[in-house]
Amino acid sequence: MPDSIDDLRARVNDFVEQRDWVQFHSPKNLAMAMIVEAAEVVEHFQWMTEADSRQLDQATKEQVGHELADTFVYLMRIAEVCGIDLIAAANAKIDLNAQKYPVDKCKGSNAKYTDYQ
Amino acid sequence: MPDSIDDLRARVNDFVEQRDWVQFHSPKNLAMAMIVEAAEVVEHFQWMTEADSRQLDQATKEQVGHELADTFVYLMRIAEVCGIDLIAAANAKIDLNAQKYPVDKCKGSNAKYTDYQ
Amino acid sequence: MPDSIDDLRARVNDFVEQRDWVQFHSPKNLAMAMIVEAAEVVEHFQWMTEADSRQLDQATKEQVGHELADTFVYLMRIAEVCGIDLIAAANAKIDLNAQKYPVDKCKGSNAKYTDYQ
Amino acid sequence: MPDSIDDLRARVNDFVEQRDWVQFHSPKNLAMAMIVEAAEVVEHFQWMTEADSRQLDQATKEQVGHELADTFVYLMRIAEVCGIDLIAAANAKIDLNAQKYPVDKCKGSNAKYTDYQ
Repeated sequence: MPDSIDDLRARVNDFVEQRDWVQFHSPKNLAMAMIVEAAEVVEHFQWMTEADSRQLDQATKEQVGHELADTFVYLMRIAEVCGIDLIAAANAKIDLNAQKYPVDKCKGSNAKYTDYQ
Repeated sequence: MPDSIDDLRARVNDFVEQRDWVQFHSPKNLAMAMIVEAAEVVEHFQWMTEADSRQLDQATKEQVGHELADTFVYLMRIAEVCGIDLIAAANAKIDLNAQKYPVDKCKGSNAKYTDYQ
Repeated sequence: MPDSIDDLRARVNDFVEQRDWVQFHSPKNLAMAMIVEAAEVVEHFQWMTEADSRQLDQATKEQVGHELADTFVYLMRIAEVCGIDLIAAANAKIDLNAQKYPVDKCKGSNAKYTDYQ
Repeated sequence: MPDSIDDLRARVNDFVEQRDWVQFHSPKNLAMAMIVEAAEVVEHFQWMTEADSRQLDQATKEQVGHELADTFVYLMRIAEVCGIDLIAAANAKIDLNAQKYPVDKCKGSNAKYTDYQ
């Protein structure tokens, strides 16, 4: 079982190639597929209180795990077909967010960064 | 710069804790934040042809990378607060998908698995 | 100012035709545009408590109105280009929902209809 | 069968009140429910070419109609609980869009309005 993101990405790519699905995997289509899976995550929580969403029973947790996994797989596929290094992109974005959201200005606040500027 | 998903997850968690944002990070809220970021990926492609989406210019590729990064960060946070191991969940889901989509039945087809059963 | 949904739909169609945008308005593209606008509605509420979302200040209410309007416009456009009568479709779906969710079984419950069957 | 948007909105409100569901219909929850339904519209088109999405068979057209109807119902509910007049909001937004997208500057172009300014 692959246990790093690189192994996982390779496994996903093999899965897609074995089924000859690369032809359908344009970034446009993959972005649609990803948001559909993200919505299946949202669906689990739509009528739940925030408090209840923090203490999921085992069955719901497993289902949420499946939907997160599907979202993650499409996210990796978009990165793959666009030639984006996901880990590097995430690190670069966190660097930007650290500038947009300085600790001393936004600690404990849920305001959008445009409110600080 | 962290270069594994574990390092990245730790960096994201630190970022959130330093800003005292754990209080806002219920799975319900994070699912909303994740789909908002996924929609920002979709927005880049909504008026683009599939063909054009396969050959992004450098500026668009960088912007798509930022939106993918934001989606990924919230995905990791949902996994974190729900106690889900994202890599393990993805591997388990790919195992399931391999059963739902056997190579010999779905090669080159974009039909939904329910059409095979 | 048009005040019925038919007048509004006609106004939207004129707007699109005057700009020669029909060429971009495939159902596929419009579905993407609609969910992007729906996400802008979600964005207003992502860090808000449910209680706070029930008592919006005037500025937020106006912004939510803009995002709802954009979502509605794309919804009407999808119906238009697919040849779907939106009011009739909504009435037909409510008829179905009334069967899926009988009053005596689901009063005061937020369970999904599959839990009743 | 109600045939105006006002009749439809009243029918939807009755449906919700009879089931004692007003308690779940915070704007936050409804925004989540709306985007989940919007994603079900997107799902129909995710692997389809734009050309195919323009010529749906009767069965798909009916299913798309159901998902559009669900999206529309939640859209009306958000407007209702936020005290927003949906038709007025749409007209106001089209007025704004007419300024953002003047016919002479954007005819036949799918560029975003920020590119004109």
